Order: sequence, then C-alpha cells, then structure tokens
Amino acid sequence: MSQAVEQGTLYVISAPSGAGKTSLVAGMLRNDDKLGVSVSHTTRAMREGEQDGVNYHFATRAEFEAMISQGDFLEHADVFGNYYGTSQVWVRETLARGRDVILEIDWQGASQVRRLIPECVSIFIVPPSPEVLRERLVGRGTDAPGVVERRLAEATEECRHAVEFDFLVVNDDFDIALADLLAIVRAQRLRMGAQQPRHRRLLAELSGPA
Amino acid sequence: MSQAVEQGTLYVISAPSGAGKTSLVAGMLRNDDKLGVSVSHTTRAMREGEQDGVNYHFATRAEFEAMISQGDFLEHADVFGNYYGTSQVWVRETLARGRDVILEIDWQGASQVRRLIPECVSIFIVPPSPEVLRERLVGRGTDAPGVVERRLAEATEECRHAVEFDFLVVNDDFDIALADLLAIVRAQRLRMGAQQPRHRRLLAELSGPA
Repeated sequence: MSQAVEQGTLYVISAPSGAGKTSLVAGMLRNDDKLGVSVSHTTRAMREGEQDGVNYHFATRAEFEAMISQGDFLEHADVFGNYYGTSQVWVRETLARGRDVILEIDWQGASQVRRLIPECVSIFIVPPSPEVLRERLVGRGTDAPGVVERRLAEATEECRHAVEFDFLVVNDDFDIALADLLAIVRAQRLRMGAQQPRHRRLLAELSGPA
Repeated sequence: MSQAVEQGTLYVISAPSGAGKTSLVAGMLRNDDKLGVSVSHTTRAMREGEQDGVNYHFATRAEFEAMISQGDFLEHADVFGNYYGTSQVWVRETLARGRDVILEIDWQGASQVRRLIPECVSIFIVPPSPEVLRERLVGRGTDAPGVVERRLAEATEECRHAVEFDFLVVNDDFDIALADLLAIVRAQRLRMGAQQPRHRRLLAELSGPA
C-alpha cells in the first residue's frame, strides 16, 4: 500500500448531438491542464485535415477486430459499418500516471465503461429545451429532412438514458455549463479518496505523534 | 411521488480550531444565497453582544434536557458542563423547503448526524501544516500555555477523524479553499439525484413522445 501514486479520474461525458458537448469538452481542456481526452480508434477513412493519432487512431477492420478479440477496448461500437473504440490500455495507463481522462462517448459506450471501471464519473449534458435541440440539429447545414429526423430520433434515444449518469448539466448558457463541468472536476479532486494519498503526510502530522 | 419539492442538502463541516472554518463558512454564506447555517441551542450564558436566535438559541439545562429526551436534537454534546445541540426539526424542515443547510460541528457531532441523515455531505478542513495550526492557536491572544496545549491536543484528536469525511479541503490560501468549498456545493447540485426532480419536465420532453 506504500506511497500509492494518486490515481486519475475517468470522466465519461455523453449528450445528444446538438447539446454542445464537443465545445464544452474543448473548454474543459483549455481551462484545466490536468485533464486529457482519449483519442478513439476507428476503421472509418481518414478525412481531409485529419491526423492519425490526433483526431483518431486509424485502423483496418482486421486490426480492429483483432483488438476486440484481445479485449483491448474499454468500449467499442459499430456505427453504420465503421468501428469506433476506446483503448483500455491507454486509458488505464493514463489514469495510473495520475492524469484525469475524458471519454466522449454515447450512452451505450458509457454503460460498457461503467461495468469495467465502476469508479468512473459520468456526466450527461442536455440542451435547455427540445426546440433548441431541433434548431441546433437543423441549423447544421443543408441536410435532407430525413437526415435531420434520424438525428432527432437518435438524440431522443440518447436522452432516455440520461438518468443512468452521475451528473446532469443543462447547456443553456455556455459559460455557466462550462463552470458547472469544471466544478464537478474540482469537487471530485477534493473527495477524501483522492485527497488522502495526496495529503497523507499532512494528515499524519496533524493527527499527532504516534 | 408526484411533484416532489427539490430537497436541500445538509453539509456537515468540521475542522480543528485554527483551521479557519468559521471565516470560510462565512465566505460560503456571502457567496451563495441558497445556503443557510443552523443556529445551535446552548445552555451556556449569553455573552455581551450576542442575540438569542441569532448566535445561539439559549436554553436552560431543564429545557435542553427535555429536548434531548424528546429526541429533538440531531446531535448534541456536553462541553465543559454546557450543552450544545442542533435542532432536528429546524434542519429537516429547512431541507424539505429545498434550502441547503450547513452545520459547523465537531467530529463527534458529525458522526451522530451521519447516522440520522446518511445522505449528508461532510467536509473536513485542515490547515496546511502543524506549524500553521500552532501559530494560529497560539496567536489568538495571551492565553496561558496550558490552554494552548489543551487546544492543540483537541485539534490533534479532531484531525484523527478527518478520514471519516466525504471531502478534504486544505486551507492554505483562503480564496482557493473558499472556491473549493463552493465547487463542492455547486457539484452537489448537479448530481442526477438533485437535478432529476428539478428538470423532470425537460428530461421527459427530450426523451420524446410516449
């Protein structure tokens, strides 16, 4: 038990698309340099401007399926014929080095991660109303109506699982929602389980001579 | 279960004397108008400048002992011949109205409260070093050395129970420690259990038509 390195916390963040999750997570990373985000593996083709190891770890289907059979993924999913997954080794090693890790995944991935790392902290982000959600999903561009309807249906399905999460953040005002997320991370670091290894010597000294 | 009023959270805050607890709690109350602090009952004599119902609810020993036998106290203690206690009715009614309540009590009171209200959130505050604690306790005035030694012994005893608390805040820099405490309160309000009743309608609407 001696001198255990302070273990990082795994944050699982999910949201319906249109809730502003990606911008909020980017804001968290800008404001807190002890936070890192996991880079997923995927079999989908690399797009213009993307970099292997930065946006995704790009892999072939054969490579990805070998990783699945070796139990390398903390969670993975097949989304319209492309695999996406989170490397278990990378996450566990990063946490063991005392860094906090954010996973941006859907409710199904969150549910897989909770089973493997029950001490993870899960946060669900919602827009302030169904109208705002619809506006954000429609306002994205010139998608065919069917595409928008499919996204709305997916968003609805995602929101049905909100209650499975530890925290709920309503993204009405971006700055308030970001401050909410940062408060969750700050408070988590003040939990006795996190503080005790960090302040072991202080607590022993304050508790007096043996 | 319909339309449950959002229940407040009970914060139990303990610290060795000299940790800065009282100033920090005053800072919390200034910064967060949803927080209230419990006014204790006591049998000790009212001091110059004190007001009944503000600093304490002053009671006779007979009144206090009648309250004990009626189970009116959430916690109580006999400190050098004077009783101190926290009214259970006031705390429970205030929480039921959706207000958060802070109790500033010692580890023994905290332990009594945890048994009666297990969902309370307990926070322990420590000074940054034994030297700072000693300076703060000695620096209070012109106490006899024996008085300082007794206070130090009590502080040591109090700190032995730090690990029983949910959160640990180190009061090195006052502003950082205050921000820590406010982050704990903010995060607590974002827990799903607190958010679900507050956003029941939004969650239902986002989860789509039945």
